[in-house]
Amino acid sequence: MDKKGLFISFEGVEGAGKTTLIKKLVGFFTDKKQDIFLTREPGGSELGKKLRAIILNAEEKIYPSAELFLFLADRAQHVEECIKPALKAGKIVLCDRFIDSTLAYQGYGRGMDIEQLIMLNTLATNGLEPDLTLLLDLPPQMGLERAKTRNIAQNLTIDEGRFEAEALQFHQKIREGFLTLAKQKKRFFVINAEQNAEEVFYIVKQHIEKSFKFE
Amino acid sequence: MDKKGLFISFEGVEGAGKTTLIKKLVGFFTDKKQDIFLTREPGGSELGKKLRAIILNAEEKIYPSAELFLFLADRAQHVEECIKPALKAGKIVLCDRFIDSTLAYQGYGRGMDIEQLIMLNTLATNGLEPDLTLLLDLPPQMGLERAKTRNIAQNLTIDEGRFEAEALQFHQKIREGFLTLAKQKKRFFVINAEQNAEEVFYIVKQHIEKSFKFE
Repeated sequence: MDKKGLFISFEGVEGAGKTTLIKKLVGFFTDKKQDIFLTREPGGSELGKKLRAIILNAEEKIYPSAELFLFLADRAQHVEECIKPALKAGKIVLCDRFIDSTLAYQGYGRGMDIEQLIMLNTLATNGLEPDLTLLLDLPPQMGLERAKTRNIAQNLTIDEGRFEAEALQFHQKIREGFLTLAKQKKRFFVINAEQNAEEVFYIVKQHIEKSFKFE
Repeated sequence: MDKKGLFISFEGVEGAGKTTLIKKLVGFFTDKKQDIFLTREPGGSELGKKLRAIILNAEEKIYPSAELFLFLADRAQHVEECIKPALKAGKIVLCDRFIDSTLAYQGYGRGMDIEQLIMLNTLATNGLEPDLTLLLDLPPQMGLERAKTRNIAQNLTIDEGRFEAEALQFHQKIREGFLTLAKQKKRFFVINAEQNAEEVFYIVKQHIEKSFKFE
């Protein structure tokens, strides 16, 4: 694959501040005259939007294995239709959640076999991994409170809050899962997300400027 | 798993006569005072109906890997929500297409790795296999002509005819794939579907009466 762009994924528990950081980075890369492709999982492609609506619909009981395959279908379509062409065109891809969310939520959270999930991710992505994964780390109770405040502020119902409604213990496992993954892969950069949004952005900005060159 | 019912799947190329045979078998099992659960893939569950509509929508380009994961999501939900409970309740499950269609269409047809597909099927079904698989075998050109006539008669548009529009060569590979699978698994019973519907039904009826006991 003749990849030319830069692929950055954002991971972390609910309310860790991914959305805020992504917005600031859009400004940062725009200032640097970079073409940006802003996306997310699930729901990055047209097919994915339909699947996202199905996955996040809390009224329907979706079995864990079916849910996993829906995430993988979303990812496979997203990678082929959106991410690969954007990278080929030299764009900076900013993706809110990617392969590590499957490992953290389905694997460390729900207890599915991690090696099997890695294999399934590889099938869905055809081996594509981010160049950089920004992990916003904070205690899950703090993230859940932030997410709650956000949902109330945005008048969101449980449709968008399904995963946030899960027990705190589940989110604790996910946090630990993300930290375990970060120790295994060099592409991770872990940021203490208890800091305010400006501080988080400053640290990330410095890391990116140190790690990558932009003409 | 405390399985008590009987699980019969129906496989074959388009227009092989699965629907007609299934209808006749419903009558046959009803006469024997058996409880029947009639279903199909994709689209057996409520989630599956939504996925079926997405999969068969020819307007949207769905990448092969995404399509595969959608079929697997449909299957995983279908097995857990519908098939396992029906078998547990002692019903006779008649399922129009199941695991072997994935192997024949995505594997032998599209050239995906068969061993990998078997592994993915096992993940989706948690190892559940039919007790009996009825393979209606006939030359694909004959099946395609029948399917075409049916689609015109039923006023179906390309929405329901996506797979039928594929090249004849593709369907030839699928036929051969099904026959290869039939040689590998004892649960298969292959019927020459060039015969008329009454003859097909008679042969199947005899096989079922010989193979299974009903109180």
